[in-house]
Amino acid sequence: MPQLVAPPPALVQVQSLIGEALEESARIYDAELASASPYVDDLVQHSRRFRGKQLRPMLLLLTARAAGGIQPEHPTLAAVVEMIHTATLVHDDVLDEAELRRHVVTVNARWNNSTSVLFGDFLFTHAFHLAASVGTTEACRQIGRATNIVCAGELAQIRQRGNLDLSEEEYMEIIEAKTGELCAVACRLGAEFAGADQDAVASLEAYGRKLGVAFQIADDLLDLTGHEHQAGKSLGSDLDLGKSTLPVIRLLRRIAPERRADVRELMSGSGRDTHRELIAMVDETGALDSARQTAGMIADQAIELLDVLPQSTERSLLADLTRFAVERNA
Amino acid sequence: MPQLVAPPPALVQVQSLIGEALEESARIYDAELASASPYVDDLVQHSRRFRGKQLRPMLLLLTARAAGGIQPEHPTLAAVVEMIHTATLVHDDVLDEAELRRHVVTVNARWNNSTSVLFGDFLFTHAFHLAASVGTTEACRQIGRATNIVCAGELAQIRQRGNLDLSEEEYMEIIEAKTGELCAVACRLGAEFAGADQDAVASLEAYGRKLGVAFQIADDLLDLTGHEHQAGKSLGSDLDLGKSTLPVIRLLRRIAPERRADVRELMSGSGRDTHRELIAMVDETGALDSARQTAGMIADQAIELLDVLPQSTERSLLADLTRFAVERNA
Repeated sequence: MPQLVAPPPALVQVQSLIGEALEESARIYDAELASASPYVDDLVQHSRRFRGKQLRPMLLLLTARAAGGIQPEHPTLAAVVEMIHTATLVHDDVLDEAELRRHVVTVNARWNNSTSVLFGDFLFTHAFHLAASVGTTEACRQIGRATNIVCAGELAQIRQRGNLDLSEEEYMEIIEAKTGELCAVACRLGAEFAGADQDAVASLEAYGRKLGVAFQIADDLLDLTGHEHQAGKSLGSDLDLGKSTLPVIRLLRRIAPERRADVRELMSGSGRDTHRELIAMVDETGALDSARQTAGMIADQAIELLDVLPQSTERSLLADLTRFAVERNA
Repeated sequence: MPQLVAPPPALVQVQSLIGEALEESARIYDAELASASPYVDDLVQHSRRFRGKQLRPMLLLLTARAAGGIQPEHPTLAAVVEMIHTATLVHDDVLDEAELRRHVVTVNARWNNSTSVLFGDFLFTHAFHLAASVGTTEACRQIGRATNIVCAGELAQIRQRGNLDLSEEEYMEIIEAKTGELCAVACRLGAEFAGADQDAVASLEAYGRKLGVAFQIADDLLDLTGHEHQAGKSLGSDLDLGKSTLPVIRLLRRIAPERRADVRELMSGSGRDTHRELIAMVDETGALDSARQTAGMIADQAIELLDVLPQSTERSLLADLTRFAVERNA
């Protein structure tokens, strides 16, 4: 049984509702990547150890149930979005020169960058191949469209690395593309293949996008203030990589203009002391709390979009999941 | 008009037969990648300068004409295979730390590795998105299947880097996957969407695979013996990267066992003198000629597979193209 993100009371319900479909999705995922090459198989097995919260497959399957019921296509679609997500993680770890992910050594650290680039490609092409097995071009078209946006968002982010004057609007655009869009398409495919009407599909797609944005803000907050042990990876890496995130953007807006140069210098540095000093500043100025509130507000907006659905256990669980996405500590 | 690879007399014929479809394909390619972001647009424009022989779109369109006629889907499919090819080039240049491609500075050299990884992903996802616009899942399925094989071939190649005991069989398997498969699927889609029968589709797919293998052997020979100015890139890079290619594999089989250690030591070194010494050895032992003959023989096998088609100008041009793929000097 994959590890689920939902809080304990909800977890039991999620398992009873979509546990079987999640397991089928995991089987489809493994079957798609089965390889006769021991080398490729080793990479696949290793990458399975990154399997984390299963947020996107859970979103897809819960949305499907909430919007009409799980159909035969849904476990395959859930495997597709998870595989795309894993592909982006493998490539992100190359970009970030990360060494740990979910307590497991990254592909680039255990093998090398070249292997990571090719293995990420391998995951991308298999995801599209799997999407094509669904029977209509709709899944391929939607996955293609969404991943185009994800990649454009990642490119915008890499372009803005080191830009300490990134605006809040630019930050939001980037995370909506790189994280929001895959959650959006997960909910869209869940609803569409469950036979939901156009209004419901559009609202649930917007719900997924908002949830993804809130989740990413929470992730960026954890990178600044979380515990490495719980997160299972090095923290403070956004600062080291020159990524401006919401609390830092708000800090720069809150402090006196004459102190901005000091913050920019701090951000250009690295190491634990620098991080600690910056964390103290975002905390004291209220920038941290304000970023937390924004994440909570966007999560609330997401939950409101669920009103398009009739009341149901699944709808409540989607709301729980949304709250948990911003309140988690790992 | 894109630059064509075919020899001058055939060029005029190719232009008159598929010039218009090639131009339409180039327009579809550009429209798919159009971006409002100046940064992404700059990357796209830059990558268009790598546009080279257009071998895969030409194969697809000539096969289509030879097998029943160009249909509305064909220019889109030609753009898809070319975009996949460009994506693999962008990622290959990261792996090889290459600085020049077709006389143009590579993306990793002008920007950086991270941008190359993400831009290659962007090209992959757009190619799949474009494939999904064709109207049936067949194109997505075939492109997905073929690119899975291409990536597995690339992974096998990276795994064998530095293995100076690579067997000829292993070498052939790698190039059949990494280069043969995309040519195979180009011919397959050309024939399939032209309404060819199953036998013809299978033979033309096999033709494309053989042509791709012969083309790759010729490419590997050029890396060893070609002129940098004509090739528009650094040569001898296979040796520097520890890639065993056919002439070197045959050299090791031809020389006396007691001299093999010397060759292996030469191969582990780098620099012009090392290259020159190795080239002299593959030449003197006949390993170079024998690799050339193998490329020619595989090209002949490819041409024989064209017998499945009735005689036509297109079929003759496919044969010309195959011969040119192994006889070119750039």
